[in-house]
Amino acid sequence: MSFSPLIRQLIDALRILPGVGQKTAQRMALQMLERDRSGGLRLAQALTRAMEEVGYCRQCRTLSEDELCPQCADPRRDDSLLCIVQSPVDVFAVEQTGFRGRYFVLKGHLSPLDGLGPEAIGIPELLVRVAEGQFSEAILATNPTVEGEATAHYIAQLLIPKGLTLSRIAHGVPLGGELDLVDGGTLAHAFAGRKTITL
Amino acid sequence: MSFSPLIRQLIDALRILPGVGQKTAQRMALQMLERDRSGGLRLAQALTRAMEEVGYCRQCRTLSEDELCPQCADPRRDDSLLCIVQSPVDVFAVEQTGFRGRYFVLKGHLSPLDGLGPEAIGIPELLVRVAEGQFSEAILATNPTVEGEATAHYIAQLLIPKGLTLSRIAHGVPLGGELDLVDGGTLAHAFAGRKTITL
Repeated sequence: MSFSPLIRQLIDALRILPGVGQKTAQRMALQMLERDRSGGLRLAQALTRAMEEVGYCRQCRTLSEDELCPQCADPRRDDSLLCIVQSPVDVFAVEQTGFRGRYFVLKGHLSPLDGLGPEAIGIPELLVRVAEGQFSEAILATNPTVEGEATAHYIAQLLIPKGLTLSRIAHGVPLGGELDLVDGGTLAHAFAGRKTITL
Repeated sequence: MSFSPLIRQLIDALRILPGVGQKTAQRMALQMLERDRSGGLRLAQALTRAMEEVGYCRQCRTLSEDELCPQCADPRRDDSLLCIVQSPVDVFAVEQTGFRGRYFVLKGHLSPLDGLGPEAIGIPELLVRVAEGQFSEAILATNPTVEGEATAHYIAQLLIPKGLTLSRIAHGVPLGGELDLVDGGTLAHAFAGRKTITL
């Protein structure tokens, strides 16, 4: 006992959000009820529309309510460059780099132990996309994890025979970091990938 | 450009939640879209119902969709004890102590600089509630802040002449803490409020 049923239901429903536990859900529910009911209603409408209407882009498989996502629909982008990422959120991250080619979004990474083989993550659709396009280079921007590397390697083996240049985003020390905070594996990659300075 | 309009609207709408910035909102929106659409729809329904139907308890002024909240509607609670708190979330906190009296929820604390006088925080309604009830003791459980203390002091001055015993929750060191992490003001209160040990 203590909260009335509707408030309790709202608190329980908020807990599906990542990183939201009981205390945070309580605070969210009560803050909306006490200070921002119109914002709460707007959120409810945005949720309903997004959950019901958002599907996947026919071409790059990212989340989109239109048949073609904004990136695929834009005629000014470079049709010779394909960036392959693991999830829709990565498209947003890569967009911030200034990349203006095309995308293909996998459904995660290969993970045989979880039963995620090439079909489950969308490799057949990737091959169709590559066959239909006129790409000269494919940039593998899967995550720098063991699974992401394995997925990148697998895709490279499939696409190189098709005449594409395959590249992998560079590993190294992040900008603004300090060397003693960087892990050994990353630092080893940064040394192995060192570049000659030319004046 | 990058997210389609509906996804962007959802991300913007999520940012009204306390503690949720752009990155967290993105993660929440994409996680719901990719993994838990039914949870997202449930959340939308819970939000809509709560925002539209939850009002305030007629008696204690906490948030409730019924005319009487669960605490006020329960006939087995102690009608001689009144606990006065600053907000609905405090009711939940006090319930966990095992307190089984009645409640009155203020709308925050007195704050003359922000234009929040006795009327704004619900003091007139508190006086009506006290006049209608048969309370023998009122426990002031406003926050242990300067404003909370001032509000408690103000209420005590109003209610003591009406024949009630007024009490304030104890200040002191929290259980499980370490003395050197406790601030000086709290420690001073803990010394001033020390209790003789009897065997």
